[in-house]
Amino acid sequence: MALLLCITQWDAARWLDRLRRLAPDRDIRAWPDVGDPAEITYAAVWKQPPGLLATFPNLRGIVSLGAGVDHVLADPALPPVPLGRVIDDSLTHRMSEWVVMHALMHLRNQAGYQALQRQRIWRELDPSPEARELRVGVMGLGVLGLDAVRKLALMGFDVAGWSRTPKQVDAIPCFAGEDLDRFLARTDLLVSLLPLTPATRGILDRSLFGKLARDGVFGAPILMNAGRGGLQVEADILAALDDGTLRAATLDVFESEPLPPESPLWLHPNVTISPHNSSISDEEAVGRFVLRQVERHERGLPFEAPVDIARQY
Amino acid sequence: MALLLCITQWDAARWLDRLRRLAPDRDIRAWPDVGDPAEITYAAVWKQPPGLLATFPNLRGIVSLGAGVDHVLADPALPPVPLGRVIDDSLTHRMSEWVVMHALMHLRNQAGYQALQRQRIWRELDPSPEARELRVGVMGLGVLGLDAVRKLALMGFDVAGWSRTPKQVDAIPCFAGEDLDRFLARTDLLVSLLPLTPATRGILDRSLFGKLARDGVFGAPILMNAGRGGLQVEADILAALDDGTLRAATLDVFESEPLPPESPLWLHPNVTISPHNSSISDEEAVGRFVLRQVERHERGLPFEAPVDIARQY
Ligand SMILES: NC(=O)c1ccc[n+]([C@@H]2O[C@H](COP(=O)([O-])OP(=O)(O)OC[C@H]3O[C@@H](n4cnc5c(N)ncnc54)[C@H](OP(=O)(O)O)[C@@H]3O)[C@@H](O)[C@H]2O)c1
Ligand SMILES: NC(=O)c1ccc[n+]([C@@H]2O[C@H](COP(=O)([O-])OP(=O)(O)OC[C@H]3O[C@@H](n4cnc5c(N)ncnc54)[C@H](OP(=O)(O)O)[C@@H]3O)[C@@H](O)[C@H]2O)c1
Repeated sequence: MALLLCITQWDAARWLDRLRRLAPDRDIRAWPDVGDPAEITYAAVWKQPPGLLATFPNLRGIVSLGAGVDHVLADPALPPVPLGRVIDDSLTHRMSEWVVMHALMHLRNQAGYQALQRQRIWRELDPSPEARELRVGVMGLGVLGLDAVRKLALMGFDVAGWSRTPKQVDAIPCFAGEDLDRFLARTDLLVSLLPLTPATRGILDRSLFGKLARDGVFGAPILMNAGRGGLQVEADILAALDDGTLRAATLDVFESEPLPPESPLWLHPNVTISPHNSSISDEEAVGRFVLRQVERHERGLPFEAPVDIARQY
Repeated sequence: MALLLCITQWDAARWLDRLRRLAPDRDIRAWPDVGDPAEITYAAVWKQPPGLLATFPNLRGIVSLGAGVDHVLADPALPPVPLGRVIDDSLTHRMSEWVVMHALMHLRNQAGYQALQRQRIWRELDPSPEARELRVGVMGLGVLGLDAVRKLALMGFDVAGWSRTPKQVDAIPCFAGEDLDRFLARTDLLVSLLPLTPATRGILDRSLFGKLARDGVFGAPILMNAGRGGLQVEADILAALDDGTLRAATLDVFESEPLPPESPLWLHPNVTISPHNSSISDEEAVGRFVLRQVERHERGLPFEAPVDIARQY
């Protein structure tokens, strides 16, 4: 009975140290030092090598080391065992910090005032609207989206949300599924906190941008994406920024990460970039969460944040 | 019975038009077209010429067109009639937008990430603390300070406040008067929303900066001031930034406004400047508020936001 760390692109040795320190009595290994494949009962994974998990005949469960699971499900030979993901308050709160900060920066034309400062110019630009005059629409009302809509509303924004299934969230108007176009038509600032699934891949494209509100305080809508890069079509974002369909974009995630130096997004005057750090997790807390999932499952309990493989999130 | 607008530095003609449109039956004049001084019963003022108000023998009340009244009280010959000021929800909410946005920008090292973007560098800087790890201290728990501490707390910051008289604000620790040093010692990010009075002039100086916490997540404290420029000693801010006593400063108000082009604050790498626009008022709403104050007072009612001349705010 061993727990295997299957990590690529992150520092696997550091994760191994951390988990061994947190659970000194447990047999924990890190790929590629698998030992006997028949001994692996659980896998904690970040972008595991495709096909790897299928080689463990006694695998009973998989836990994603991140909140998203698209990186796990990308494996075409994923064994049919329960999959869990991470939910962490700190991760949730940090994401809302990113969302509220960037929404306020757009509201208050912070980029414009920073440009004036660099030129030592004291001037009032067009008066900023108040938060209640800006209609913010959040796509995805899961763990992250719910915290974000509540905090945006507390800051005074005119908030609505959209999710796959209908939701009731305080006094916030919530749209579901087919009602996407009505949601977009009342949205001046769109915030994407969706998971990447076959249904959401490429959803942030030219056709969607064209359905956003153009009768708002800024005339043209703003895009913010912190879900996954695969949700967005970057060529469409650039074209929409250049022809005025979009006023500005703030992006934390990209089709290809790290964002290549030659991407025109980097230096576009209306694009703000963060390096996929809108919400970093407290690694100690994640380590503890993952170990708790394995213990629960061994005792016959389900994962705390089980993933529905059919809907892919 | 006439209402006189006594405005310098703002566009008096626009204010005259607005008030006349809102109260077409009232006799409203704008300095210097005073007419018979004996007919002036109320004055609505922004930085009135010193000595002017003393020339109206039948003056019954003065209303400041701004939330602050230091510009009115600077008149050494101010007649001893009631003084009112503006309180406006929109002004209050906009100030909290400015406070929360700049607090989050410090928390998340937004300046650092913007510098990386300009160089097309994809890199994680030192992991940002979470809001709850940053101790924010708000000086001034009046109309503006109360809204700001509540919103900072909702965003997760570890907030405390300081005011002249003791206060109870939800679960937020509040310090008063003599307890200033204890308040400063637990403050990583100081937000000044104080009025400018003889007791607060120059309070943001080297000696105060030296009492702020140095054991916080950033090592050195951060200053934000949106009260009045006269609260701060700019030479001390610059010296404190340069010797590490302060980590950064965000300033909306200055000793001299507009901030002169030769001020070293403009291009200091750790200073963020806004041109006294942290909270602009909806002029239509302020116009209506001012007219309502005059009507109230004529009917024998007190101003809604009376100023205590003894404490100067
Ligand atoms: N940038 C970062 O640093 C970072 C950090 C953490 C997470 N993330 C991303 O954020 C995503 C969301 O995280 P979470 O914890 O909030 O996920 P979650 O709790 O699973 O919520 C997902 C939300 O998206 C909605 N949704 C899914 N598919 C949809 C569709 N086809 N149409 C409409 N709505 C759909 C769901 O609707 P229902 O409510 O109806 O199910 C749900 O409201 C993660 O998957 C991850 O990719 C990014
Ligand atoms: N930058 C801008 O755009 C802008 C816009 C609007 C206003 N302002 C400034 O913001 C200031 C505050 O506005 P407000 O409406 O919140 O004022 P307020 O309601 O009068 O509140 C003032 C607060 O400061 C406290 N205070 C005053 N003197 C003090 C002292 N010596 N020691 C400790 N605390 C003291 C008061 O304490 P108590 O509660 O004990 O009385 C009160 O909590 C205005 O005076 C104005 O200068 C700036």
